[in-house]
Amino acid sequence: MGSVVEGDVSVESISPFGKARSTIKEAPLSEEELKLTDDYMRASLYLCLGMLYLRQNPLLKEPLKVEHLKARLLGHWGSDAGQIFTYVAMNRLIKKYDLDVIFISGPGHGAPAVISQAYLEGVYSEVYPDKSEDVEGLRKFFKQFSFPGGIGSHATPETPGSLHEGGELGYSISHAFGTVFDHPNLIALTMVGDGESETGPLATSWHSTKFLNPITDGAVLPVLHLNGYKINNPTLLARISHRELEALFIGYGWTPYFVEGSDPMSMHQAMAATLEKAVQDIRGYQKKARESGKAFRPLWPMIILRSPKGWTGPRTVDGHYLEGYWRAHQIPLPNVASSPEHLKLLEKWMKSYNPEKYFTEDGKLIPELKKVAPEGNRRMSANPVANGGLIKKPLLMPDFREYSLPVEKGGITDAASMSNFANFLRDIIQKNPHNFRLFGPDETESNKLGGVYAAGKKVWLGEYFDEDADGGNLAFEGRVMEMLSEHTVEGWLEGYLLSGRHGMLNSYEPFIHIIDSMVNQHCKWIEKCLEVEWRAKIASLNILLTATVWRQDHNGFTHQDPGFLDVVCNKSPEVVRIYLPPDGNCLLSVMDHCFRSSNYVNVIVADKQNHLQYLDMEAAIEHCTKGAGIWDWASNDQGEEPDVVMASCGDVPTMEALAATALLREYIPELKIRFVNVVDLFKLIPHGDHPHGMTQRDFEALFTANRPVIFNFHSYPWLIHRLTAQRPSQQNLHVRGYNEKGNIDTPLELAIRNRTDRFSLAMEALDRMPELGNKGSSAREKLLSSQIKYRTIAFNEGIDPEEIRNWKWPF
Amino acid sequence: MGSVVEGDVSVESISPFGKARSTIKEAPLSEEELKLTDDYMRASLYLCLGMLYLRQNPLLKEPLKVEHLKARLLGHWGSDAGQIFTYVAMNRLIKKYDLDVIFISGPGHGAPAVISQAYLEGVYSEVYPDKSEDVEGLRKFFKQFSFPGGIGSHATPETPGSLHEGGELGYSISHAFGTVFDHPNLIALTMVGDGESETGPLATSWHSTKFLNPITDGAVLPVLHLNGYKINNPTLLARISHRELEALFIGYGWTPYFVEGSDPMSMHQAMAATLEKAVQDIRGYQKKARESGKAFRPLWPMIILRSPKGWTGPRTVDGHYLEGYWRAHQIPLPNVASSPEHLKLLEKWMKSYNPEKYFTEDGKLIPELKKVAPEGNRRMSANPVANGGLIKKPLLMPDFREYSLPVEKGGITDAASMSNFANFLRDIIQKNPHNFRLFGPDETESNKLGGVYAAGKKVWLGEYFDEDADGGNLAFEGRVMEMLSEHTVEGWLEGYLLSGRHGMLNSYEPFIHIIDSMVNQHCKWIEKCLEVEWRAKIASLNILLTATVWRQDHNGFTHQDPGFLDVVCNKSPEVVRIYLPPDGNCLLSVMDHCFRSSNYVNVIVADKQNHLQYLDMEAAIEHCTKGAGIWDWASNDQGEEPDVVMASCGDVPTMEALAATALLREYIPELKIRFVNVVDLFKLIPHGDHPHGMTQRDFEALFTANRPVIFNFHSYPWLIHRLTAQRPSQQNLHVRGYNEKGNIDTPLELAIRNRTDRFSLAMEALDRMPELGNKGSSAREKLLSSQIKYRTIAFNEGIDPEEIRNWKWPF
Repeated sequence: MGSVVEGDVSVESISPFGKARSTIKEAPLSEEELKLTDDYMRASLYLCLGMLYLRQNPLLKEPLKVEHLKARLLGHWGSDAGQIFTYVAMNRLIKKYDLDVIFISGPGHGAPAVISQAYLEGVYSEVYPDKSEDVEGLRKFFKQFSFPGGIGSHATPETPGSLHEGGELGYSISHAFGTVFDHPNLIALTMVGDGESETGPLATSWHSTKFLNPITDGAVLPVLHLNGYKINNPTLLARISHRELEALFIGYGWTPYFVEGSDPMSMHQAMAATLEKAVQDIRGYQKKARESGKAFRPLWPMIILRSPKGWTGPRTVDGHYLEGYWRAHQIPLPNVASSPEHLKLLEKWMKSYNPEKYFTEDGKLIPELKKVAPEGNRRMSANPVANGGLIKKPLLMPDFREYSLPVEKGGITDAASMSNFANFLRDIIQKNPHNFRLFGPDETESNKLGGVYAAGKKVWLGEYFDEDADGGNLAFEGRVMEMLSEHTVEGWLEGYLLSGRHGMLNSYEPFIHIIDSMVNQHCKWIEKCLEVEWRAKIASLNILLTATVWRQDHNGFTHQDPGFLDVVCNKSPEVVRIYLPPDGNCLLSVMDHCFRSSNYVNVIVADKQNHLQYLDMEAAIEHCTKGAGIWDWASNDQGEEPDVVMASCGDVPTMEALAATALLREYIPELKIRFVNVVDLFKLIPHGDHPHGMTQRDFEALFTANRPVIFNFHSYPWLIHRLTAQRPSQQNLHVRGYNEKGNIDTPLELAIRNRTDRFSLAMEALDRMPELGNKGSSAREKLLSSQIKYRTIAFNEGIDPEEIRNWKWPF
Repeated sequence: MGSVVEGDVSVESISPFGKARSTIKEAPLSEEELKLTDDYMRASLYLCLGMLYLRQNPLLKEPLKVEHLKARLLGHWGSDAGQIFTYVAMNRLIKKYDLDVIFISGPGHGAPAVISQAYLEGVYSEVYPDKSEDVEGLRKFFKQFSFPGGIGSHATPETPGSLHEGGELGYSISHAFGTVFDHPNLIALTMVGDGESETGPLATSWHSTKFLNPITDGAVLPVLHLNGYKINNPTLLARISHRELEALFIGYGWTPYFVEGSDPMSMHQAMAATLEKAVQDIRGYQKKARESGKAFRPLWPMIILRSPKGWTGPRTVDGHYLEGYWRAHQIPLPNVASSPEHLKLLEKWMKSYNPEKYFTEDGKLIPELKKVAPEGNRRMSANPVANGGLIKKPLLMPDFREYSLPVEKGGITDAASMSNFANFLRDIIQKNPHNFRLFGPDETESNKLGGVYAAGKKVWLGEYFDEDADGGNLAFEGRVMEMLSEHTVEGWLEGYLLSGRHGMLNSYEPFIHIIDSMVNQHCKWIEKCLEVEWRAKIASLNILLTATVWRQDHNGFTHQDPGFLDVVCNKSPEVVRIYLPPDGNCLLSVMDHCFRSSNYVNVIVADKQNHLQYLDMEAAIEHCTKGAGIWDWASNDQGEEPDVVMASCGDVPTMEALAATALLREYIPELKIRFVNVVDLFKLIPHGDHPHGMTQRDFEALFTANRPVIFNFHSYPWLIHRLTAQRPSQQNLHVRGYNEKGNIDTPLELAIRNRTDRFSLAMEALDRMPELGNKGSSAREKLLSSQIKYRTIAFNEGIDPEEIRNWKWPF
């Protein structure tokens, strides 16, 4: 139809059809190489169609019949050819230069491409011996695809060579960068879908080059695949002018090389030349930096591949466009079971890929083609980096006890739990200079973790100003990774862990919801990995949440959301752990445990401000090991059934619950109160539902069978109800937590609005003990008038009264 | 320090200091205009510092003392000057060309800038009469800022002229586009922080130009503010080469105009000239398109403003950089209370803005400056678009009953609920051609809503290919907005609603988690608005979730996550509603209700596949109005206490629960079973906790006080436990739902893995009725063997058996 952009733009220049048009004009392949490349690609494409359609007759030795087809046709054809085309072209360079390369498949549902390659490389049969390299193995290989009990149409954990599923789009580039940090010889060849490119996370992740050091890190080689269409729409990047497209990637800090067209032979030559140029650029920049010892930021090469969606399929079917249109997205011919003509068409199409030439009578890839792939671990589907647990080295850990905060008596001394933890973290970084990084969105300093800069500064390959010397803590080579994109830093960390290293993310609590979905997907990935025998366990993903809701009083309502825990609790109990250490020594003990663990997502919630300290190191270790326990020093029910249980989970809620306990004991000294603290949230859930869950007997030993429990919780209160729903004594739990009430308040006021302050808690306890009669009512009156008094002072002064801010345990 | 980019890049060229350097070289301001502009800016800057520091002595008539200061200093200085600078420059053009402009403040914590402008324009005193234009009003205005009981440091709902808070970063551009769609004369002047620019959602939202029609829509004029620093780090875009920066925005489809420097007078001239050029460009493109009737996509103008962070503050303090460094981010001089020197410095600094010249003795802005601002609704802080409820027109609605699906008897007929609903939606679109849009991430067709294209196609201002005529449904002017970025489409919709229109988002259920955080923030915004008297209610944000977990069996584990409901349930009951209509007529009734509502986030979960139909329209309306009820036609306990209650919530779970009921009644005919269905999820919560919550009496009238209830739920089961935690009969609820188990399965197998299938539910019911003795055990055996039989068939065939797929209610 023509151009809608102002100015002269030629639609022809952005067509995916025709002879190759490319930035690099060379044609490096010999006739023989060209033929082998194309044959190998066609063999792979044959396998893709086989996966989509067949459950019998895998090599089409018999005429194709409906009974050879799967009953329900599922799977995606759209991006397969472009991905295979790129994969095969890279094989030549891996062999020529002995490269260490992994392949990251970004486009959604592009798994047939990489699975077919893994099969051709023999890796599939190595890890799944029943999918052997013979006719019956091939039949099983086809049938299992998108078939109940089989494998999915994404590059799931079952896919050899994959560390990126691509089910939810947007993370291919950030994952790729994560894999190459501290892997100086690795190249992550990353196919990026043009659909995926429209997502926010992908759009900003192109900037990752400002954090890549050419001396210590490897390289990401993106191939932006302008496949042209999403499910049902054209893609943005395939429909803008050439000038805009080129400018965009220069703007992102890359050197774009174009490869565009549909003619296979000229395209193979163009891609071979372009990939080789890109690899040479990468090697050249690395050499220059490594030989000079001086890091710099080149405009790294990237490739823009424009090819028709469903490339090599029929251009039209029944008068409608297929190849080069969105109709090629999923099953290209969906009516083969009902239409004999379409069945014939499919057969003809499949046979056009020459299965009988490329596979022997007994179903083996012919030796000439077998040689096209690299060997051993150089095969991209066998690269151990993509099964990172295999190459994971243990983290070297200092003894966390050496960072203990002195605590002589609980609830008396105030200390900076978070900046103390920073010392431990600093020394972990120092002991593991190539094996651990700290990630965060511009908040490490604000989160009181700046102490780590002594062991590793913030990586920065943007420009430097003179000011940076004045406490900027920036360096070409560092250990702290900060960009104001939760998506990007999470993606980097996931990639870093998936490729066999260790790390931690620190974030403000309220904005961690930005990556709910990414964390969900990582949980699903590591859970599925447990079912895949050949996958080795990776290090846990540790997320430290701070700047928590109870100290976001001044930032207001938008900064108050502790609900990430609800999202995490929905994930499989096999892979999620949640800890709320009440003080500094517990924080050390919990973090030590998390860093040593594997295959979990550990979420740790701890505030960054100074806080009261409760347990010395020995007591902290014991408490954290149990996960929940009675604090005898704060209880006065020793040897007896208490009148009421005061319970807490989280640092600020613990202080308020302790203060409530003190108020009650002051006003009614004969009251027997038991104080219980929960560190490990999953202790509350029934034993059968989570490995950490308490038995009913243990639960009652803490919370009693029938006394009222006032439970002060860090997050939304109903999470506790949910976890304890099946406990018979559940109705005795009176849970307080954040109730979505807040604005610009003092901490006390914020707590009062959510009824988690000491006065409200103590009143709640009294309300649950009507048996106290007048004593209770009179204490209640005193509590209410104290609450009003302090609230008024705070409102007038704009700051909580000294007695509240510096409260200490009085017994 | 110099350049780290390969090639010759001059660090000087990206310095924020010095005389103005700009693309447009003109100097349009007269001496008089220049002076007034600068004075007005200085008056505004004075107010910013006042807000940050003062609770007394607002015009510094007395020497500044510690007791004049707030006890706790909170607030942000960093981006204030740049924003004020831009705001003031736009005022001139609003007056000159009578422009209709709103100001969107993207940079985090930049509220002092816009609040001070609202005060100078008199709007603040109009909406908050106690913050009057006199000394006492000014004192209150200063004190309330970031003070308990006062207002926050973001552009919160309390801020006149704001419809974008900027608490969580990343949405300024998508919000801005939402406001200008169908507002052809509006310009959204949008300050974009360079910190915010690093977020994914912001990075992709620049592409919104491909969806803006110059005939029917207004324009977004972005001012990317290269303020240089985030909390503690330089920003990426301020530290890349000029060439990269310019290329980036050309690549995004804009024409960037630069304004860079720190010298106020030359900067005012440069900004005045540049803004004027941008406005002329906009008007020119619009004129060309409107006069020719031919839409096109210009490279719209945008401005890149580079100025020092904390501009106009002291460059250094105590030997450390302040202006032009990250230390200027928050309170620029934090130690004024303890340091007499810093207190003096602050006083001197504040006085340098000449309060005594710009404000009269009794605290009024002097008349010469008062005239700098536009008048009435042309003042950006008074623009009614930013209080969208004011200009909202009611949605014209066809009668939803006219789209009824015929249902003679429940559970017998199969129909396409979603594509039937599409007819209703199509006619809403048709009746409201400028007042309603449908948003989604490339899934409208896949979600069976393609019927709407008859009333409005997909807006597309990218290039067109010939293929598009073959079912592309693209148009320059349309009503469906699709981009593969949940963030962008959600941001557009929010902006569209906030500026007074109506709309709906449709999305696959699993990937809605991508925008958890955005929806959270929108909920918080509309909840706060309820407390702001002058805010008018806006239309509800309607989110239709489809492609649900129980029909994502083939896409596998990554596509299975119904947990968005947990996130929504954490928000204030004042603003959230969740509906799970069990069939097509209920879907129509629910959607009609949602479209008519205001100030809610309505979440509707309904699958897109064909489903059994249960209720005729009359019954559906009655059922949806009640929100939960007994289905007599599926129950056989009439007039008696049932032996067991079978309950369901969600379409697929309802079918399985009905099938379980039928199996039980077949095997044990004397069993009395009551069937209960829940449409409105918040019916379950206690009456006091949500306006929709049932009283305990109503709850027991449905679920009984003590009979076992087998509750089959669409989402994670514990959400039901959480909602019913305080119900005395809670322990009788046996909830089944998605348990995070799935892979490539048939629907039956997926249900079995999560124990939500008919056989498991019936067995569960029997297990809860040990009183049935042998009858129960024998029925249980039959159920188990049926389950195994059907499971085996499905596993072998790859498709569920006919009896399962086409099951009908047999009674």
